[in-house]
Amino acid sequence: MSLNYILQDIPERTLKPRTNGLTMVMDKGLSLRQVEDFLEVAGIHTDIVKLGWATSYVTPNLKEKLKLYKEAGIPVYFGGTLFEAFVIRNQFDDYRRTLDTFGMEYAEVSDGSIEIPHEEKCEFISKLSKQVTVISEVGSKDATKIFAPYKWIKLMQAEIDAGSWKVIAEAREGGNVGIYRDSGEVRQGLVDEILTQIPEEKIIWEAPQKAQQVWFIELIGTNVNLGNIAPAEVIPLETIRLGLRGDTFNHFLNKK
Amino acid sequence: MSLNYILQDIPERTLKPRTNGLTMVMDKGLSLRQVEDFLEVAGIHTDIVKLGWATSYVTPNLKEKLKLYKEAGIPVYFGGTLFEAFVIRNQFDDYRRTLDTFGMEYAEVSDGSIEIPHEEKCEFISKLSKQVTVISEVGSKDATKIFAPYKWIKLMQAEIDAGSWKVIAEAREGGNVGIYRDSGEVRQGLVDEILTQIPEEKIIWEAPQKAQQVWFIELIGTNVNLGNIAPAEVIPLETIRLGLRGDTFNHFLNKK
Amino acid sequence: MSLNYILQDIPERTLKPRTNGLTMVMDKGLSLRQVEDFLEVAGIHTDIVKLGWATSYVTPNLKEKLKLYKEAGIPVYFGGTLFEAFVIRNQFDDYRRTLDTFGMEYAEVSDGSIEIPHEEKCEFISKLSKQVTVISEVGSKDATKIFAPYKWIKLMQAEIDAGSWKVIAEAREGGNVGIYRDSGEVRQGLVDEILTQIPEEKIIWEAPQKAQQVWFIELIGTNVNLGNIAPAEVIPLETIRLGLRGDTFNHFLNKK
Repeated sequence: MSLNYILQDIPERTLKPRTNGLTMVMDKGLSLRQVEDFLEVAGIHTDIVKLGWATSYVTPNLKEKLKLYKEAGIPVYFGGTLFEAFVIRNQFDDYRRTLDTFGMEYAEVSDGSIEIPHEEKCEFISKLSKQVTVISEVGSKDATKIFAPYKWIKLMQAEIDAGSWKVIAEAREGGNVGIYRDSGEVRQGLVDEILTQIPEEKIIWEAPQKAQQVWFIELIGTNVNLGNIAPAEVIPLETIRLGLRGDTFNHFLNKK
Repeated sequence: MSLNYILQDIPERTLKPRTNGLTMVMDKGLSLRQVEDFLEVAGIHTDIVKLGWATSYVTPNLKEKLKLYKEAGIPVYFGGTLFEAFVIRNQFDDYRRTLDTFGMEYAEVSDGSIEIPHEEKCEFISKLSKQVTVISEVGSKDATKIFAPYKWIKLMQAEIDAGSWKVIAEAREGGNVGIYRDSGEVRQGLVDEILTQIPEEKIIWEAPQKAQQVWFIELIGTNVNLGNIAPAEVIPLETIRLGLRGDTFNHFLNKK
Repeated sequence: MSLNYILQDIPERTLKPRTNGLTMVMDKGLSLRQVEDFLEVAGIHTDIVKLGWATSYVTPNLKEKLKLYKEAGIPVYFGGTLFEAFVIRNQFDDYRRTLDTFGMEYAEVSDGSIEIPHEEKCEFISKLSKQVTVISEVGSKDATKIFAPYKWIKLMQAEIDAGSWKVIAEAREGGNVGIYRDSGEVRQGLVDEILTQIPEEKIIWEAPQKAQQVWFIELIGTNVNLGNIAPAEVIPLETIRLGLRGDTFNHFLNKK
């Protein structure tokens, strides 16, 4: 789908609303006008926006910001750390009310900073999935906690069974934990093994760094679900998906 | 102080105008509209703004920019490199006039790029402190100039005695000299020793990198003075101060 | 040329329209308002803008964006990867029509992602130079393809002879291939040797990283041509050119 001129043999992108090929963007404190600027340029390429971790706690004009995204038809959710901040304080009911107060239609359930027995986590997913669409995140923000592949698969499957719309593979804003090594390099064997068991359209891979985006696009294809994309990186990402940046230029040409 | 919803047991932030818990932001060339955007989102969390080094020399609309900050009640000062650029050219009197021309109420005295005998530096502080509120910076921009802790303490104390409102511990925009190693890692022993002699509310720690901000918040607390914060990182920093980002999430919970 | 106050002995900058001392900026997806903000602050310091690689394919409001730059008197061109995307699809004539459709006055010819026999590349340069002002790029985006200095010189000279207004030394947005090592460090011997044969005003050095900008300014001077500058880094770069940032502060003072 060309906006401005015709190039032949461009990989086909799915169309919004998508079930795969999602781009999830992280807003970690945009102003209202910056949201408008983002929407002008990247709105057509963005499927869902996360207000990073608990930034919503200290963000002015939150209701107005949510309204801008809503008018653009882009769902928004609070980062999973906010869910955890409520849960660790025994304020889960307050969290549910907060979601309603702000008219949220999506929510993230995660255990990146706190320990929750997995059965309990799945109960949270199950309960919340009656109120909103749930995205759940697997993987710790703690770089020293490394799970074996079978464990990732088991956790992801249980969360999908409990009601998660998508599961997110944790990477943080920096892209250096969870499915990545310290250096930001992908744990390739882990990803391969996960994909033998979990359908790829159910997973959103957090991939804030360009090399990570390229890696997943080359492995899974144009329409892989990618997350934690910075607002200014949505246009660049879209060109990588389409084989129109140096990084994937030859990958797609060679496939023909 | 919640903007949008209530979470219990959040560390208490000091209120503006603060003597500790300051966030000093570096503006290295924002447009007028970008200043407005910054103020909308981060104004309530920002205590003072530095126009980085001598960027004011080539910045259009300088008077209009200063006016925007003034209307928002946020003091602004020119980076110390500008002071040095005037001094090395024997134009100190021009510098004083320039401060008046632009209605500056704060100024920075530093010796990061030039050598000034310390007595002379203290005289500059003393003179300027009769005209404006002085912030002085200790530490060289030259990565090879490393001072012993007792030297840092002696310099800081002399500058406070000469009239500095706060002393800044040099790190540059990149955060890799002065109180940091090349890698950006904090010189921990140095910081500990400085704090045995200089009251922590008198020091602004330049901490442009997230890991550095986390380190100082864990050492000194929510209300540590931090500087050289990028405009887009003020909201993230505020969540780190409050234990609402993964990095300090458990630190504050465990303290209770 | 001071905007706001007088400092003596500032290195002399060439004036627009320049033949040397060019700053080429990379726009990789700015919104219309972001272009306006950029122009307000950095327009007077910017000589030419590149719409990075093939970002124009997925950028909304392309015509309006081009209009904003045109009104500011700043030439714009599509990144070389777009030329290559058309050529590899046997759509060179479409490319020429696309340039006309959008009223482009400049175009880039490159072979960073595809292999083109050099004679053929020079024919493209020659043909396009009858339609627009041509900038051609030497060097591969592939980090494993390393040319000897004599080869760089031969390629550059042939392209200038074929009609290139300027030749660009490839570095990518990241600044880690071509004239740079993986680490971003300059291949100093290569640059020295190129400069023995090619006039420096004919070359634009891609230098997205600050250390690279500093290196070229110290080698060639205030008025070196630098490219792939991020919009927010134009003001900082201008201070480095003028010896008003720590990095080049002493370099220019010592030369007097």
